[in-house]
Amino acid sequence: MIGEKELVKLVKSSDTKIVLIVMDGVGDIPDKSGKTALEQAKTPNMDKLAAEGNLGFTLPIDWGITPGSGPSHLALFGYDPLEHEIGRGVLEALGIGLKLGPNDLAARANFATRDDKGIITDRRAGRISSEVNQKLCEKLSRNLEAIDGVTVKVYPGKEHRFVAVFSGEGLYDNLMDADPEETGKMEKFVEALDEKSARSADIANKFIKEVQQVLKDDHPANTCLLRGLAKAPGITGFGDLFGLRACAIASYPMYKGLSRLVGMEVIEGLNTLEDEVEELKKQYNNYDFFYLHVKKTDSYGEDGNRPSKVKTIEEFDKLVPGITGLKPDVICITSDHSTPTDIKGHSWHPNPILIKGPHMRKDGACAFDESECLKGAYGTMFSKDVMQILMAQAGRLKKFGA
Amino acid sequence: MIGEKELVKLVKSSDTKIVLIVMDGVGDIPDKSGKTALEQAKTPNMDKLAAEGNLGFTLPIDWGITPGSGPSHLALFGYDPLEHEIGRGVLEALGIGLKLGPNDLAARANFATRDDKGIITDRRAGRISSEVNQKLCEKLSRNLEAIDGVTVKVYPGKEHRFVAVFSGEGLYDNLMDADPEETGKMEKFVEALDEKSARSADIANKFIKEVQQVLKDDHPANTCLLRGLAKAPGITGFGDLFGLRACAIASYPMYKGLSRLVGMEVIEGLNTLEDEVEELKKQYNNYDFFYLHVKKTDSYGEDGNRPSKVKTIEEFDKLVPGITGLKPDVICITSDHSTPTDIKGHSWHPNPILIKGPHMRKDGACAFDESECLKGAYGTMFSKDVMQILMAQAGRLKKFGA
Repeated sequence: MIGEKELVKLVKSSDTKIVLIVMDGVGDIPDKSGKTALEQAKTPNMDKLAAEGNLGFTLPIDWGITPGSGPSHLALFGYDPLEHEIGRGVLEALGIGLKLGPNDLAARANFATRDDKGIITDRRAGRISSEVNQKLCEKLSRNLEAIDGVTVKVYPGKEHRFVAVFSGEGLYDNLMDADPEETGKMEKFVEALDEKSARSADIANKFIKEVQQVLKDDHPANTCLLRGLAKAPGITGFGDLFGLRACAIASYPMYKGLSRLVGMEVIEGLNTLEDEVEELKKQYNNYDFFYLHVKKTDSYGEDGNRPSKVKTIEEFDKLVPGITGLKPDVICITSDHSTPTDIKGHSWHPNPILIKGPHMRKDGACAFDESECLKGAYGTMFSKDVMQILMAQAGRLKKFGA
Repeated sequence: MIGEKELVKLVKSSDTKIVLIVMDGVGDIPDKSGKTALEQAKTPNMDKLAAEGNLGFTLPIDWGITPGSGPSHLALFGYDPLEHEIGRGVLEALGIGLKLGPNDLAARANFATRDDKGIITDRRAGRISSEVNQKLCEKLSRNLEAIDGVTVKVYPGKEHRFVAVFSGEGLYDNLMDADPEETGKMEKFVEALDEKSARSADIANKFIKEVQQVLKDDHPANTCLLRGLAKAPGITGFGDLFGLRACAIASYPMYKGLSRLVGMEVIEGLNTLEDEVEELKKQYNNYDFFYLHVKKTDSYGEDGNRPSKVKTIEEFDKLVPGITGLKPDVICITSDHSTPTDIKGHSWHPNPILIKGPHMRKDGACAFDESECLKGAYGTMFSKDVMQILMAQAGRLKKFGA
């Protein structure tokens, strides 16, 4: 497979436009009806696109591997998800809307309960309310000082969860979690897995001790666990890699965060699917590439709510003419991963994909669903390859070799 | 994927014969007729082979990547085209029929016009005629001396183009072009991108100065530009890799050059398709492997001439019984890359492939065209994998592991 280094040399400029629509988790398996969500939904507009375009399936990581949202989106954005790992701490930070720079090390943290002997008696501090969490974070913010020249900021999440961001020179993230993983066990501290990460472990552990000092009278939230300590991966910007002015149209923080991480411009303040499509129209002349994210297909998949997943697909289908009406040169509709309602979670099943560009082969597919994707021209490919096809169809890649 | 090192260990000898037919650029996309060139052409003989064999598609480099003829042929010959890059200078030299050895560094050169101050006022010396070019090359040949122990030979091409070949020990090719790329700019000299290539850059630049000296009164052709300076890549010979006595049956210089580069025996003096098939019959007992090249399917693709592309396919189909009549153990018909007539150039679309050997699966395909290839047993694979299948069908590969 071609790598980023070779690919970037092939990129040429053009005035073509590409729209990548990610219907999060839309891929499914048949439920008791014998049909998938896409097969149940009435989608005349996507079916028309499917008849004109080419279909197939994508694998985000590999056969049988269920991806998280981070790697599955990175792959669709053209990055090898096995080369660019996004730590949990970074994802958690992106998820609450934080922007991370190259000197930032992020951790997902839990407020927890510790007894006098250092035993963790509750890993979630009795699931304190988000309001209490916010007050504790404010108290920590007032009292925390820089540790060895590294500043620490804490940001409240829901219930007992918060994010800690360490900022300074020379931080490394080859670190083990500070989490005993079970209640009733002795507290753990961060351990470094290599020499250069030792100072970061030391700073993280000084932070835990400071938290214990500041919160000594705040039982049950009198300590914290730190997990998934990670820096944002060094990624070649999407604009530098593909020569595209890219715009992310998404309403959920984590997807906006991921887009920002790869260097897309992120539109803020969008809530509904209608908002998103209207924004696409508004921004259409300002960018070459649009990533549009449909969240609820995944949420209803996670809930096991097939009727609402089907309804979301149908609602989106009604908005498709508003997008195709803009006449983008290349349009792609796919999911980042499957979220079958019978599984109530992400799965490893390949994602249905539809690509329509100016230079299509003919295939036997005439509707956008998993059964028709089996007749598609693409067979099963890796999600990472999708951007190459979109770029080729958009006339934005030179010949390889002579 | 298995690499050359592992593959070579699996090779075993046999008296089976393999015929690989490359219909250059035959892959296409539907034009206004709704059909591809293969779908329009009447090809009863290839269709019969398709019904007996298995079909599918190949990717020369990767999804969305349009290959040049060099890498796409290397891939079909079983070499990873991303590992073995062929420089422009080498291809240009092969294209005019030169044979390059391990001590040769080749450059594609232009005669150009330079003013007193070193400004390049015409990068093509007013597109001088091929006759003038030939005389200038003869003049250079009479006057050029070895530079630091390295001999330089020049070979005329068409109009202002020629090839310069530097021959000597210790030449390296991590070099930038000596070409300002635009008229009206100051002349450029070759720059080395690493230390070991510095001497080669120096020799190339002394050559440019010598050319300027010899041609000082030959305005407009009073200097030269050097581009794509490259050595032939170090390649494990086709015979060593696959244990095959291989014969290349092609009429165009570049394909003969590529075949020679990988160590095939090249038959000279062939012009027509009929010549090629007759030569195959004549040589049939002398070799184990035959590469037969059909050029015009690509040429007519590049011209956007669908009727002539279809006619070439039909003409070749009439010659197929002459090949199958030899009863080769394995026969493969494919393209190196697609050259759709609507695109008038190479494209990234996967290549139709047909393989017929003694141990076939059954698939749904019963004619040789892109729509039938969708029903094929191979799905979409990399071109590099084809040789492995041909070798396996020919009983020329041992078991991997026990």
